[in-house]
Amino acid sequence: MKIVIVGGVAGGMSAATRLRRLDESAEIVVFERGPYVSFANCGLPYYVGGIIEDRESLLLQTPASLAARFRLDARVLQEVTRIDRESRTVEVTGVRDGVTHTEPYDVLILAAGATVTGTLPGNDIPVHTLRTIDDVDAITTVLDEAGDSARAVVMGAGFIGLEAVENLIARGLAVTLVQRGPRPLSPLDPEMAAPVIDALRDHGVDLRVHTTVTDIRAGMVHLDDGTAVAADLIIDARGVRPDSSLARDAGIAIGASGGIVVDEFQRTSDPSIYAVGDAVEKTDGIDHGATLVTMAGLANRHGRTAADAIAGVAEPSVPAFGASIVGLFGLTIAMIGWSETRLLAAGRPHRVIHTHPSSHAGYYPGAEQMSMKLLVDAETDAILGAQIVGGSGVDKRIDVIATAMAGGLTASQLSRLELAYAPQFASAKDAVNMAGYVADNLATGATRSVQWHELENAISSGAILIDVRSPGEFDRGGIPGAINLPLDEIRERAAELPDAPIIVHCQVGQRGHTAARLLSQLGHDVQNLDGGYRTWLAGMSSTSPTTGAHRTPPATPLA
Amino acid sequence: MKIVIVGGVAGGMSAATRLRRLDESAEIVVFERGPYVSFANCGLPYYVGGIIEDRESLLLQTPASLAARFRLDARVLQEVTRIDRESRTVEVTGVRDGVTHTEPYDVLILAAGATVTGTLPGNDIPVHTLRTIDDVDAITTVLDEAGDSARAVVMGAGFIGLEAVENLIARGLAVTLVQRGPRPLSPLDPEMAAPVIDALRDHGVDLRVHTTVTDIRAGMVHLDDGTAVAADLIIDARGVRPDSSLARDAGIAIGASGGIVVDEFQRTSDPSIYAVGDAVEKTDGIDHGATLVTMAGLANRHGRTAADAIAGVAEPSVPAFGASIVGLFGLTIAMIGWSETRLLAAGRPHRVIHTHPSSHAGYYPGAEQMSMKLLVDAETDAILGAQIVGGSGVDKRIDVIATAMAGGLTASQLSRLELAYAPQFASAKDAVNMAGYVADNLATGATRSVQWHELENAISSGAILIDVRSPGEFDRGGIPGAINLPLDEIRERAAELPDAPIIVHCQVGQRGHTAARLLSQLGHDVQNLDGGYRTWLAGMSSTSPTTGAHRTPPATPLA
Repeated sequence: MKIVIVGGVAGGMSAATRLRRLDESAEIVVFERGPYVSFANCGLPYYVGGIIEDRESLLLQTPASLAARFRLDARVLQEVTRIDRESRTVEVTGVRDGVTHTEPYDVLILAAGATVTGTLPGNDIPVHTLRTIDDVDAITTVLDEAGDSARAVVMGAGFIGLEAVENLIARGLAVTLVQRGPRPLSPLDPEMAAPVIDALRDHGVDLRVHTTVTDIRAGMVHLDDGTAVAADLIIDARGVRPDSSLARDAGIAIGASGGIVVDEFQRTSDPSIYAVGDAVEKTDGIDHGATLVTMAGLANRHGRTAADAIAGVAEPSVPAFGASIVGLFGLTIAMIGWSETRLLAAGRPHRVIHTHPSSHAGYYPGAEQMSMKLLVDAETDAILGAQIVGGSGVDKRIDVIATAMAGGLTASQLSRLELAYAPQFASAKDAVNMAGYVADNLATGATRSVQWHELENAISSGAILIDVRSPGEFDRGGIPGAINLPLDEIRERAAELPDAPIIVHCQVGQRGHTAARLLSQLGHDVQNLDGGYRTWLAGMSSTSPTTGAHRTPPATPLA
Repeated sequence: MKIVIVGGVAGGMSAATRLRRLDESAEIVVFERGPYVSFANCGLPYYVGGIIEDRESLLLQTPASLAARFRLDARVLQEVTRIDRESRTVEVTGVRDGVTHTEPYDVLILAAGATVTGTLPGNDIPVHTLRTIDDVDAITTVLDEAGDSARAVVMGAGFIGLEAVENLIARGLAVTLVQRGPRPLSPLDPEMAAPVIDALRDHGVDLRVHTTVTDIRAGMVHLDDGTAVAADLIIDARGVRPDSSLARDAGIAIGASGGIVVDEFQRTSDPSIYAVGDAVEKTDGIDHGATLVTMAGLANRHGRTAADAIAGVAEPSVPAFGASIVGLFGLTIAMIGWSETRLLAAGRPHRVIHTHPSSHAGYYPGAEQMSMKLLVDAETDAILGAQIVGGSGVDKRIDVIATAMAGGLTASQLSRLELAYAPQFASAKDAVNMAGYVADNLATGATRSVQWHELENAISSGAILIDVRSPGEFDRGGIPGAINLPLDEIRERAAELPDAPIIVHCQVGQRGHTAARLLSQLGHDVQNLDGGYRTWLAGMSSTSPTTGAHRTPPATPLA
């Protein structure tokens, strides 16, 4: 059997090596249009920043090492330019010499990845993507020549864009970050993006949201806000789209997303042709629709799935939740599943939970506070998504939630997870457990909550807002119009409360819950402001980021 | 309704505060025999070592704060000495004044915790447990008086014993650690305990295994190996047993383990009496038998379960897997479920997987290698247990596996977990995924493995051992009798192999797997040494820890 693989990085190479382990006799040919196979593409931004110092460490395998260990025939600088499904051949063109030949296959695996979307007007400043070894070689050359006062414009504030920004700042550059959308990391809900915006500003990044590049000329990057920024380097980290043209031209089914359609064994509409990685559609873990998730982990896993299927070991792919994580100036931002924004847009009934737990027991030194958001199906209590922003321990909690989603645990069942506890690693009631407790309280009706963006409407409708924090906390800043009634005084002073719907809030939501339980048992109609003052403040500051008007609001003590 | 709670720390206090949030009208009385409620018992060793500097930070709540916020009647230095189930009263005795009174209850919750097992002969050196604020006050007084040259003996190398050792070393003491069993942390399998033994020795701890204290006199601790150790302080961190005497005396059902028997709502054999925490039996998550698991997280969770049940919100407890974690001199040791030792003793068919993955992508600076062990049901592929020893990232992986066990994922399904990946946090095929791939290969028969402790027998039975590492690795030390045939040369030199069963091994098991697949397809009967040279070396050194004979074994290149 002869297997031809198009693309020799994550998905293609996982398929190739797994195939060899399953079938010593197969002939396996890998065509890679670039000069390198199996390089560490997720490490590229950190090589630019000098965090990864050794360029060789990015090159995980070479054609020679793959030949010696796996008897793979990996050919670089060879681009597959056409598929002839009838004759089961591909047309291959040398990238440098232009020489074309025809290669037959019994089975074809497409793993061409993604390409950058969009074009740019003008070109007198070098514009680079950050996707290949060639890219980082070119970028480091520009940086070395431009010297200490170099200036860069990064287009796109997604994962790669933020990693590029962090590493260019590490190299000492002045950086402007241009983002078309309203905030960095568009899958993050606005209140969760607030710490990201703060981190960018704290590190001197010139963040421009709701902005696009209109022209590049005379050493200046012109923006649609009417300004222009001088730059020695432009990194184009805007979105990518599946590189599915080869498949499309061959009449293979392409989905509405532009990705190649595959079944659960990664097989395309042509049973002799498989496809994996960024070029294919995935099945969404939440609504089981077709989706695009461009993650190295999925590419690797699906490469193996394809190899297994080709070798006759049936093992279907599972749906994708889109787990992802990125570091930015010591902040860790992680997410999975659907955002509140997306759930609202889809009209899917859901519950929202914000908590601000500690990375480990507060009495043990070094604990860091994180902000955690959990999205829960209002009918089934299923976990629909999570977003976590903080420092240490964020990666652990997103992986625990990812695993809970894979195992079909409900949000309330998170409260009963038995997680490993010692005070330097976690809390006895860990962050994930606590989110589960809140979910349980919402599911059973023990508490009702209101979201930060619903507060204004609720107050307009006649609800009164009670801040149950201490007078000291209240004096340091609160929500306009709130009345201060500290939690520990509520029992004695409950008679002072007017006969109206009440919204209570504290700093992070926990004392608010206790207050809400108490007032509700005293006969009041009460809701707790989810996530407390912290979440409200993050939401308000991220939706009006230039004013900062909500950072020191006036506040009124209870008369 | 009047609820009386016996014990005011983890489980009792979780029950009390949850009860108040559910029922504002209940009368809730908590009797605590010690002088403090709700203190950070897991932080005590770190206060001794000076890591936690502020004693106040150990005191999470006081009777006054609990009264103000939760209207709890928490009474310290009050010991419940008898239960009269007929009259629904308890007899309460003042610890200092000896005054006795009778307190009626409608519902009683027992949360008395555990007591130290065993007695000690002689007493002219202070012997302290490490369980209360009083304990650490006494220990720090001894340490302050003994000065810089103080010497300590720690009895018991379990979690508390190791934490005590670490913190006494941090205080500059000379420490002897006396362990009755064959190694520290007895639930760890021997090869997993090797790094623990190394860490203790590297930090100057005088570790005595298979040893007990026979006498304490004239400032010396006498051991059953015939030696004696001078000591200014003895920490008794030997095992604990459930403090169930109150329940036993009242005729409440006690299990064979000595723990109070409870149903899934934490109710004892008397429907008016609940019990939670270290005093009760848990249901084992693996065999669903009764077991003892003394963990703060379970105590807290079961306290809440009891409160929910009392308030009429039925939410049953789930079985316990015994997830646990401990830090020791920068090493992190975590485990869950059953060990190989226990599975072998129970005769339960299982598979064993050892891997040595990286905490994050190897090309990103700071990655640390960990040793991971996964125990898998041979028939169902269920995850029966895991043990992980290493540095950063150990806590994350044990929690992911714990969550997978709670969600009922099989070991092979770990390969398909979608975990959040960026190179500073994980690997694209993460440590847990890789263990899942090995499990999948074992489940499908794609590979067969032999354990380090089975190697000697296999070789005696005629198998030949092939070391597939590079000649350089081979020369630096290997397994006696192994023949060196590097992986990348196997295809060319396969004809040199004798016609006998083959066991291949590499450094950690991964190249061995590739070699095994290749040789098996070439027609050989082949097994891979699970976990490679590293696991074998750890196993051999931990089972003959004094000799170190296996650290530089002779090795033979292939003729």
